[in-house]
Amino acid sequence: MAEIVYHTLIEQPVFRTYVFYVAILSLKLLAMSVLTSIQRFKHSAFANPEDAGPRKLKVNVNENVERVRRAHLNDLENIPIFFVVALIYLTTNPPVFLATMLIRLFTISRFIHSFVYAVVVLPQPSRALSFAVGYFITGYMAVNSIFYYLL
Amino acid sequence: MAEIVYHTLIEQPVFRTYVFYVAILSLKLLAMSVLTSIQRFKHSAFANPEDAGPRKLKVNVNENVERVRRAHLNDLENIPIFFVVALIYLTTNPPVFLATMLIRLFTISRFIHSFVYAVVVLPQPSRALSFAVGYFITGYMAVNSIFYYLL
Amino acid sequence: MAEIVYHTLIEQPVFRTYVFYVAILSLKLLAMSVLTSIQRFKHSAFANPEDAGPRKLKVNVNENVERVRRAHLNDLENIPIFFVVALIYLTTNPPVFLATMLIRLFTISRFIHSFVYAVVVLPQPSRALSFAVGYFITGYMAVNSIFYYLL
Repeated sequence: MAEIVYHTLIEQPVFRTYVFYVAILSLKLLAMSVLTSIQRFKHSAFANPEDAGPRKLKVNVNENVERVRRAHLNDLENIPIFFVVALIYLTTNPPVFLATMLIRLFTISRFIHSFVYAVVVLPQPSRALSFAVGYFITGYMAVNSIFYYLL
Repeated sequence: MAEIVYHTLIEQPVFRTYVFYVAILSLKLLAMSVLTSIQRFKHSAFANPEDAGPRKLKVNVNENVERVRRAHLNDLENIPIFFVVALIYLTTNPPVFLATMLIRLFTISRFIHSFVYAVVVLPQPSRALSFAVGYFITGYMAVNSIFYYLL
Repeated sequence: MAEIVYHTLIEQPVFRTYVFYVAILSLKLLAMSVLTSIQRFKHSAFANPEDAGPRKLKVNVNENVERVRRAHLNDLENIPIFFVVALIYLTTNPPVFLATMLIRLFTISRFIHSFVYAVVVLPQPSRALSFAVGYFITGYMAVNSIFYYLL
């Protein structure tokens, strides 16, 4: 019987899209840790004495490290909520095309956000816009779901 | 067949309650980002030179901004775990009334927490109490689920 | 019908393992808040005037408090993603033994990580190794799921 549950969900085109992009966004989130480590070694800016000690490196704060950490925190503030909200939104039977596009657009907007924040720093409003796209997609899905379950 | 899965879950009164409050709490989490931005502009305290630069604003740390950010971080430390733990708790067939009340109480406690932390700062133990209510609800659900699945 | 959905998922041995360890890891995450509070009182280092005020305590930054907070943040960066990625991985019908071992190993690695980071500080690479184990398990599950759903 378990297989029926899995198959039915898997057979849904939007659910497959959802799962695929959730996995992609999870790898993106994992990549932020590596990006932070690279910046820590590059600028010799470590958070703990035991990391810096044996190599005569320093415990200090570096703006390039903090920038990646802020991008990472922004991801943590937005991506896990999207995972939950998008799944709820899928249970409201949304139009397949719209749901697929929103999931893809959210994913792209988060990649652009991290890129212009922490890889190649671009002037505003590039970061504000990429943030807003992901933000309003999550908000739209949440508001839609609330009305669906309220009625 | 997919519709059966959705319908069965949707037909459950507690599941509908769960989904509804998860969407509400997600919007609340999203609102924290806006609250931070408002404080940043109000006190002209930005985290990045590209945000402050063109408007002659400052990159600095302001206690009112940090307060909202601490409230936001506290939400991130508690709300996503609740989403996961409450869903697991629902699979243990808890009493409908109890489960509904716990989910509602958790939601209210998190709204009060943010309000007394970052909107109108109230003396302790108002924040400690609102934190404790949400904290022990999540803990109760987790411990209950562990015993259910262990036996 | 709802009961069929629950029963079928519950009857799966790996799903029960997953739910059990998710509840354990959630309690572990909740414990980090208590650990932070203990350090704040021990070193009299509070983040807000309303916490410190009435007891003549100080608002300051203490390295022991910050260490627990960094361990907590590292948990937030890794554990919620694991919850999502592991669930997706389970829908790909992985070998029962492998999936069970990966979930257990991830749980153990996160407990060791927090222990050597914030309870008894051990020299590197103890923290780096425990981090890497959890990190690569999540990464392995995500990559595996992407290939499964892509094909």
